Amino acid sequence: MTDPFFHPVSGSVLPRYAGMASFMRLPILGPDHPRLGEVDVGLYGMPWDGGTSNRPGARHGPRALRDASTMIRAQNGVTGVRPFETLACADLGDVACNPVDQDAALGAIQDFVADMVRRGMRPLGAAGDHLCTLPVLRGLAQARGDAPKPGLVLLDSHTDLNPPYFGSETLTHGNPFRQAVEEGLIDPRRSVMIGMRGTMYDAADREFGAEHGISIVPMHEVFARGIPEVAEQARGIVGDGPAYLSFDIDFVDPAFAPGTGTPEVGGPTSAQALQMVQALAGLDLVGADLVEVSPPFDVAGLTAWMGATVLFELLCLMAADG
Amino acid sequence: MTDPFFHPVSGSVLPRYAGMASFMRLPILGPDHPRLGEVDVGLYGMPWDGGTSNRPGARHGPRALRDASTMIRAQNGVTGVRPFETLACADLGDVACNPVDQDAALGAIQDFVADMVRRGMRPLGAAGDHLCTLPVLRGLAQARGDAPKPGLVLLDSHTDLNPPYFGSETLTHGNPFRQAVEEGLIDPRRSVMIGMRGTMYDAADREFGAEHGISIVPMHEVFARGIPEVAEQARGIVGDGPAYLSFDIDFVDPAFAPGTGTPEVGGPTSAQALQMVQALAGLDLVGADLVEVSPPFDVAGLTAWMGATVLFELLCLMAADG
Amino acid sequence: MTDPFFHPVSGSVLPRYAGMASFMRLPILGPDHPRLGEVDVGLYGMPWDGGTSNRPGARHGPRALRDASTMIRAQNGVTGVRPFETLACADLGDVACNPVDQDAALGAIQDFVADMVRRGMRPLGAAGDHLCTLPVLRGLAQARGDAPKPGLVLLDSHTDLNPPYFGSETLTHGNPFRQAVEEGLIDPRRSVMIGMRGTMYDAADREFGAEHGISIVPMHEVFARGIPEVAEQARGIVGDGPAYLSFDIDFVDPAFAPGTGTPEVGGPTSAQALQMVQALAGLDLVGADLVEVSPPFDVAGLTAWMGATVLFELLCLMAADG
Amino acid sequence: MTDPFFHPVSGSVLPRYAGMASFMRLPILGPDHPRLGEVDVGLYGMPWDGGTSNRPGARHGPRALRDASTMIRAQNGVTGVRPFETLACADLGDVACNPVDQDAALGAIQDFVADMVRRGMRPLGAAGDHLCTLPVLRGLAQARGDAPKPGLVLLDSHTDLNPPYFGSETLTHGNPFRQAVEEGLIDPRRSVMIGMRGTMYDAADREFGAEHGISIVPMHEVFARGIPEVAEQARGIVGDGPAYLSFDIDFVDPAFAPGTGTPEVGGPTSAQALQMVQALAGLDLVGADLVEVSPPFDVAGLTAWMGATVLFELLCLMAADG
Amino acid sequence: MTDPFFHPVSGSVLPRYAGMASFMRLPILGPDHPRLGEVDVGLYGMPWDGGTSNRPGARHGPRALRDASTMIRAQNGVTGVRPFETLACADLGDVACNPVDQDAALGAIQDFVADMVRRGMRPLGAAGDHLCTLPVLRGLAQARGDAPKPGLVLLDSHTDLNPPYFGSETLTHGNPFRQAVEEGLIDPRRSVMIGMRGTMYDAADREFGAEHGISIVPMHEVFARGIPEVAEQARGIVGDGPAYLSFDIDFVDPAFAPGTGTPEVGGPTSAQALQMVQALAGLDLVGADLVEVSPPFDVAGLTAWMGATVLFELLCLMAADG
Amino acid sequence: MTDPFFHPVSGSVLPRYAGMASFMRLPILGPDHPRLGEVDVGLYGMPWDGGTSNRPGARHGPRALRDASTMIRAQNGVTGVRPFETLACADLGDVACNPVDQDAALGAIQDFVADMVRRGMRPLGAAGDHLCTLPVLRGLAQARGDAPKPGLVLLDSHTDLNPPYFGSETLTHGNPFRQAVEEGLIDPRRSVMIGMRGTMYDAADREFGAEHGISIVPMHEVFARGIPEVAEQARGIVGDGPAYLSFDIDFVDPAFAPGTGTPEVGGPTSAQALQMVQALAGLDLVGADLVEVSPPFDVAGLTAWMGATVLFELLCLMAADG
Repeated sequence: MTDPFFHPVSGSVLPRYAGMASFMRLPILGPDHPRLGEVDVGLYGMPWDGGTSNRPGARHGPRALRDASTMIRAQNGVTGVRPFETLACADLGDVACNPVDQDAALGAIQDFVADMVRRGMRPLGAAGDHLCTLPVLRGLAQARGDAPKPGLVLLDSHTDLNPPYFGSETLTHGNPFRQAVEEGLIDPRRSVMIGMRGTMYDAADREFGAEHGISIVPMHEVFARGIPEVAEQARGIVGDGPAYLSFDIDFVDPAFAPGTGTPEVGGPTSAQALQMVQALAGLDLVGADLVEVSPPFDVAGLTAWMGATVLFELLCLMAADG
Repeated sequence: MTDPFFHPVSGSVLPRYAGMASFMRLPILGPDHPRLGEVDVGLYGMPWDGGTSNRPGARHGPRALRDASTMIRAQNGVTGVRPFETLACADLGDVACNPVDQDAALGAIQDFVADMVRRGMRPLGAAGDHLCTLPVLRGLAQARGDAPKPGLVLLDSHTDLNPPYFGSETLTHGNPFRQAVEEGLIDPRRSVMIGMRGTMYDAADREFGAEHGISIVPMHEVFARGIPEVAEQARGIVGDGPAYLSFDIDFVDPAFAPGTGTPEVGGPTSAQALQMVQALAGLDLVGADLVEVSPPFDVAGLTAWMGATVLFELLCLMAADG
Repeated sequence: MTDPFFHPVSGSVLPRYAGMASFMRLPILGPDHPRLGEVDVGLYGMPWDGGTSNRPGARHGPRALRDASTMIRAQNGVTGVRPFETLACADLGDVACNPVDQDAALGAIQDFVADMVRRGMRPLGAAGDHLCTLPVLRGLAQARGDAPKPGLVLLDSHTDLNPPYFGSETLTHGNPFRQAVEEGLIDPRRSVMIGMRGTMYDAADREFGAEHGISIVPMHEVFARGIPEVAEQARGIVGDGPAYLSFDIDFVDPAFAPGTGTPEVGGPTSAQALQMVQALAGLDLVGADLVEVSPPFDVAGLTAWMGATVLFELLCLMAADG
Repeated sequence: MTDPFFHPVSGSVLPRYAGMASFMRLPILGPDHPRLGEVDVGLYGMPWDGGTSNRPGARHGPRALRDASTMIRAQNGVTGVRPFETLACADLGDVACNPVDQDAALGAIQDFVADMVRRGMRPLGAAGDHLCTLPVLRGLAQARGDAPKPGLVLLDSHTDLNPPYFGSETLTHGNPFRQAVEEGLIDPRRSVMIGMRGTMYDAADREFGAEHGISIVPMHEVFARGIPEVAEQARGIVGDGPAYLSFDIDFVDPAFAPGTGTPEVGGPTSAQALQMVQALAGLDLVGADLVEVSPPFDVAGLTAWMGATVLFELLCLMAADG
Repeated sequence: MTDPFFHPVSGSVLPRYAGMASFMRLPILGPDHPRLGEVDVGLYGMPWDGGTSNRPGARHGPRALRDASTMIRAQNGVTGVRPFETLACADLGDVACNPVDQDAALGAIQDFVADMVRRGMRPLGAAGDHLCTLPVLRGLAQARGDAPKPGLVLLDSHTDLNPPYFGSETLTHGNPFRQAVEEGLIDPRRSVMIGMRGTMYDAADREFGAEHGISIVPMHEVFARGIPEVAEQARGIVGDGPAYLSFDIDFVDPAFAPGTGTPEVGGPTSAQALQMVQALAGLDLVGADLVEVSPPFDVAGLTAWMGATVLFELLCLMAADG
Repeated sequence: MTDPFFHPVSGSVLPRYAGMASFMRLPILGPDHPRLGEVDVGLYGMPWDGGTSNRPGARHGPRALRDASTMIRAQNGVTGVRPFETLACADLGDVACNPVDQDAALGAIQDFVADMVRRGMRPLGAAGDHLCTLPVLRGLAQARGDAPKPGLVLLDSHTDLNPPYFGSETLTHGNPFRQAVEEGLIDPRRSVMIGMRGTMYDAADREFGAEHGISIVPMHEVFARGIPEVAEQARGIVGDGPAYLSFDIDFVDPAFAPGTGTPEVGGPTSAQALQMVQALAGLDLVGADLVEVSPPFDVAGLTAWMGATVLFELLCLMAADG
């Protein structure tokens, strides 16, 4: 049982819409906080969208996710997991990303994550556009040193394995995982991508994936085979080794999550999306993130609320994996 | 065949967006109307949200539901039921709830409903927050005297069986049914709650339900077992005795009904929600309500339109149950 | 392989949000353009909603669809079809519909379409309200002369076979297909209507359909039987003869497409809707349209984006039918 | 002092957001109501927008205005006028305008108004697009017979004196007053138009006005000369004879009233607009209207609330003119 | 010069949209923080709207104001005041108001404020509905003991001096200042209310004010006389004694601040509203608040941004009054 | 009189909401169009917002401005200017700015503008964030060679003369004019900045301006002195030499233009803003732009419509300056 210090404020003490909006109403621990060393899972924001080739705004994601996440209660309604009882969690604030300098922003994320990992925390990030995941993987690699590379589990409507954009850009939100493979940050043969759909420029991304051994399960295949079967396949691919789970909010159909940069219709419902995450229980997660929530395109807070719920499910996976 | 006086105005005589917005374009009957005694089902509003622990606004629900309901036509497209031909229906207006005095507001609802029942009407209510259902049940009990207690059928993402809020509040929209059980207003063993999901504070509500014999079917179980089977189970639990059906709009996934106080992602689609209501045909309904439509949080009128459609389905259940 | 002139501008050369918004970033060919004769499929707009009995605004549909369609890429993610490689496509602009003169507007559409067909193009239209499909069918009949009449495939939540509105109006968006049958523009026995739901005035539309041999598959039957089976039935009804496919955006549930004049809850998800269109592959399409997108009632561009995706799927059906 | 029957329901008896939304919470009197003959001012809706050359939606205006007008209280805060004490007012409902038949719709308005005037009521209308004012003037002329023609006071950003649209259309919301002059329904020399601004096709409308003696005061002239001076000029032009005041909501700057079909930036603030209406006190009004509120383009109910306030100010002018 | 600990985080170190949203990016000091005793002005939230007779939602005000206030920089652009250099400021969090228990909520506010004052802080509050100001005044009176009563400066479109609501309710957002006068919490003869407009039930509030010597300057008088003259009059009325300034966001025209419960058109622009606050420089403020920001009715964050700017101007008045 | 080829499509031939949305319905001339050499003023878009330190989205500005600008008619309602009769105008499309590469994007703008100028066109640009103006000025300087440097007239709520951001960033939307001065692209002594307001970090920007001889007139001074006087001063400062006018949409109060990245309340109304532009008639404009329209933050299209109107006013200034 974790120390009460690390438990969220109850809605029966302070209404859920009241008070400072930290992730899931957890304590806020700045970089010098004396209890930082006790934290098991650090929730943090990456307010940056400089890799966006389409609609921007994901820089506003972390704040909207904090706000919505104050609605989260202590227990998972489906699995019964109570993550705050087994994991000391805290809100570490946002990485200070420079909005007009890509190198500086990516470097700041990498350092922030490497530092967390070195202190023994597992990072649970809220971005930001999907390029943010690249420096997270770099930070993990840097801090984990010779430890086995994580397999990647990607829930997304795109593979983000695209060839260079505008002829030469390798650092956009459309190609972080191509880059991660090329930098050796993940183990492609233990990686699986689920939910791809929508129109494509061509098949270059799929070919890159196939070439490196990444398994890709497009959305129409998920619908045809069923979520349990696909999830079982995914767990099999990743195996018992370390894994990193990245959830792009555009995995979910835009009716459930309109506030994102590159929506693709024809996706899963919120119920199906949550079922998919829950079905992945058992992964050995070294970290996870939720990306591409773009509040300027959201309506009625739907996307932020969906994203906050996914963050909680990711945390429950972490709590259950030990 | 009911008197044409009680038939809605046709959209081919006055366009559906035109004219005074009464529920389903029914005649408006004030408390002194001479034909009040002929009414079989009274539609009425409870514009009150003083039991809301989270996002308010359900006080604006009845007006938005009246507006949207002018889109309703005469015949159910699935079942073929034409309720206005067998039931004399009318819009009785709104209960004059004092927005800043809970006792006065709840008392006014109870009196209004008891009076309806004594005049031989079945109440079909549009709230307001879910606490409004408590005085409805009180009014029913008061007017029905020694008649058997109704079983409750609740379609909702929450059980509303929570223990006192803020330490001591037993009258909030989170605990009307706990209170109803304790006041003996419903028969818990003939009651069933369907659709629960989302995070929980703890299991106190479920334990209270179990203790009193209320059947609870969470949403993930509905998805796993299928709507027809769950509906059949529900009809079996309620049996042939009297029943009250309460539909909280947050039963439906927030993509379909964002305008509500405490949305929970992972719910049924609108099609699944309607299928569930239709599958409950055969209940002996002494009344029904649709609650928690909060227009300030709605977009594009989606929630009001969903709510108005549910009201019509509830009316069709009433028309079919004879 | 078509001439590069007819290929969309790539998002890797000009970002997808940039530049003039033509349909799918295709070249814009005015009525005097020298290469008009090379076009296989002409995309065009019908910015008119004078047949609307309920919420107007579909006159703004074509512009919103053009804007959203700039997000479409070159390849279908499910079927792999690359329509722009086999069909020379172009944006022919909008028909100059007079907004306050129904005869003039319908006549302009008919002439525009007849002219396209005579030049060897297949029309792929973006309306406008559903009455616009009537002059399209008239233009097709006029230009096709003695060729066999097309069977109609209608994806819609309404049959649009209603009897006269307000006593005598036969030209509204509620009765184009009744009119088309009476004018002999389509072959009713080779016609099928899928997705009907919501409340009905009465069964007069269904009776008219039955009388003339039109097959009608309401939405609850689609859910019960499954999309593949219904699609197979539809293809069987239409057979190998010419077909016209009309997709009313209100076929899709309003959570996925709120921006429309007469939404009906209880519809398919975006994924189910796309699956239905894809399952119709093999029809010999002489034309198709997407109607009833009403931007003033849209939120977050959801409806326009859904509509643009459907337009692309319709184009892929055309590309695959040869 | 009027009979209490004709007084609005107080917000201290039934909250202002509760109950049936009639204009200003006045009693609803259908065409057969026994007390119709006692009414001094009849408030009524014209839910029609078939004359709209640009953005439609004004057909939804009357309902939105009724809803917003329930916020109106009994006394004018500036002038102290309490109109309901001196004028018996009632909500007569909406004219049953056929949305797809211009002749039928205009005829229905004319008959409705002529009937009101014959019964001794002064009409205070809520439209609809500005073409609706034409049949109102026709109905007034018809019922008033040989009485002097009213002068027109128009508060609008456009003169609505345009030459035929699309070459030949004389019945659009851009030319009702040209038509009214040509039909002899108003006295142009006793007419004044205030607030014109925005870009123009050409000066044909201004020339027509000048030719017939209509005074036109563009908005920049109002700003330069001040509201009191312009209002005094207007009162002088109209003189002591009968007058009709038509207020197009696009008179107000779109920041204050975005929900309209043809907004023009650079208009007066809401405070300036109200000051202008108040400064017109003393006119002998035979009727008045508020037009072009288009709810689909509104945000936050701003336009409906502004429009409802203007309706109340118009009523106060009527109450003060005796 | 205050300690850097009390200076806001600069936007050049952490972008303004990033990081935890505290008021004006000030340090967050919980009730046990060791540096609480150094604070000169405590910013705090009152997330409660249980006194609302109309549209609710002001309970969500404090969080929205915190979010918007992160856009505030260090220096007043007009007056040059740099408040954080002369006043140690901090965000003290929100009062834990029970949303369903008026007594408990008002008591919690009173205790919170009394405690602040006893510790030497001046309270700068963000509500909540206007009833929240009553317990603030009670807390001030309680902690200030025999010190002279503050004069009240109210910027509002209503006097909030109304007689009991629904016959007997004296604790609503329509009568806090009537109650404050009756409880002796303010000095009515040193009090002034500015900006009143809109329709009125009757003149009972004005008469109560006149009777007790409160000066009331309605908005049309402000427009006629000019802001500088009215501000000078106000400063004269209040004199050199202690003052409390309460700014109801509905003082501003709803085009500038739509997100409020009881908007009244015809108000000042944002520029005029800020000019009015700045013109009140020189008051000896013992506290101030900004109330009635209701985010569910806001659009584009306009109201929150206006409110946050007013909070900063109030702080600048406090900084300048020494 | 210009060739009819360069006249906008009339709304009486094709409704204003219909057809391809080019700037003001002008002909679209690609880089190879044979009549490019006849163009006097080239309207073009700069869909780029990579210099944004706060809320992004201005990359979507050009498309939204094109859409809104189809509402513009041929004649200025105040000045009577008919710009299309004296200036051959065309829409040249958008610069192909790479969204993730600042150097490439700025370079593309500079080349595009230099090319226009060399071909004899004056550039009228729609951005994009305010950093876009820097490469425009570079392109002008490059093409104009030894011609006198233009004076800058800036209408904005910020000076955009800030020192480096995040310690070292000189290329953000907060410092283009500091950079322009340092690169010698404008003549600071013939430059004037009008409308500054809102909070400031410090006075470094003002000091830089003062040092280099730039005149700065903050908004409160404009209100105090009146628009005509300030405009006269501005014209005096710029004199008869060449001038460049840059209009940041945040010059206008956010109630009139909410869709922008860094709004500041307390600005001019739309009427005052237009009056200011009109009062600048007589400048010898070598180019102009309208920047910082961010559609994701807009509501009801207010900002785009305001921006499109400003673009037209700028064009009228160009038409009048000969």
